[in-house]
Amino acid sequence: MKFDMNKALQILERTPQVVEVLLKDLDEEWIINNEGADTWSPYNVVGHFVIAEKTNWIPRIKAITGDNSNKKFPPFDRFGMFEDSKGKSLGDLIEEFKRLRMQNILELQNIVTNESVLDQTGIHPEFGEVTLRQLLSTWVVHDFTHLSQIIRVMAKQYKEATGPWAAYLSVVQ
Amino acid sequence: MKFDMNKALQILERTPQVVEVLLKDLDEEWIINNEGADTWSPYNVVGHFVIAEKTNWIPRIKAITGDNSNKKFPPFDRFGMFEDSKGKSLGDLIEEFKRLRMQNILELQNIVTNESVLDQTGIHPEFGEVTLRQLLSTWVVHDFTHLSQIIRVMAKQYKEATGPWAAYLSVVQ
Repeated sequence: MKFDMNKALQILERTPQVVEVLLKDLDEEWIINNEGADTWSPYNVVGHFVIAEKTNWIPRIKAITGDNSNKKFPPFDRFGMFEDSKGKSLGDLIEEFKRLRMQNILELQNIVTNESVLDQTGIHPEFGEVTLRQLLSTWVVHDFTHLSQIIRVMAKQYKEATGPWAAYLSVVQ
Repeated sequence: MKFDMNKALQILERTPQVVEVLLKDLDEEWIINNEGADTWSPYNVVGHFVIAEKTNWIPRIKAITGDNSNKKFPPFDRFGMFEDSKGKSLGDLIEEFKRLRMQNILELQNIVTNESVLDQTGIHPEFGEVTLRQLLSTWVVHDFTHLSQIIRVMAKQYKEATGPWAAYLSVVQ
């Protein structure tokens, strides 16, 4: 598929709702268990979604489309949620994610007023020039990446419990 | 985590809702594209969920817990949706999945009236004796497996569109 603004928005709009239906009111064991040392729990992943809404997507979009001649992306701390989530329940984080995502989509729609804006470029610190179209595609795939991570982390909690089936279930490998 | 009936039901109950929020009203390209020859689209995966509700889980549970001395699992055609889904829209399949899953959970709750039922065993055609506890754990992980598949298939549609980011996004590899 080629990038298409409406088809991308269909995904970006629903991700917070998917997270909510997937995780709301689950037993804490599903929420706080992870895949081992230095891995993220579903709770951590939702915190990562929140911090990315705050400090990653819109600042990068503005670096590309803003008047500033400096097109370099500002730094993003992808572990920022370990500080930012402190004292927040999963429910708090989901509400925050829903609110921020809605705001950010409105902001995005105000910025992308015509197709040519999508061709504008910024400078990624590691791989150089990228277009807004590539950044927005990545926003969509980033949503899928971390939804997939939440599901994999939960699946692995039941790996042992499936007994001989574990060998046939790719998600727990 | 050890298998726990209530924690397992928390997942089994919500999977059809997760599928609905994830896929409802999406552009057809998100729904019918797959990962290449002989792979499944999100539409196919929802059909697979439906056929498994009809012919896999409850028949296997009954093979384990029924009076019949034959504890062998009946055959399950995991490609059965290619026939069963014919003429059905994605919305039809989601509604069918919701309805069947609700019925099957009620049936499961009528069967598992105490903890000892979970120790009963049946015979899997490939790896022999398995407990009801292992089968129900597998039902949960099977839900996660195919939710994860739906998300991966959608993510891959935007692999090219992300440009240089693709190399950093594990879900599209």
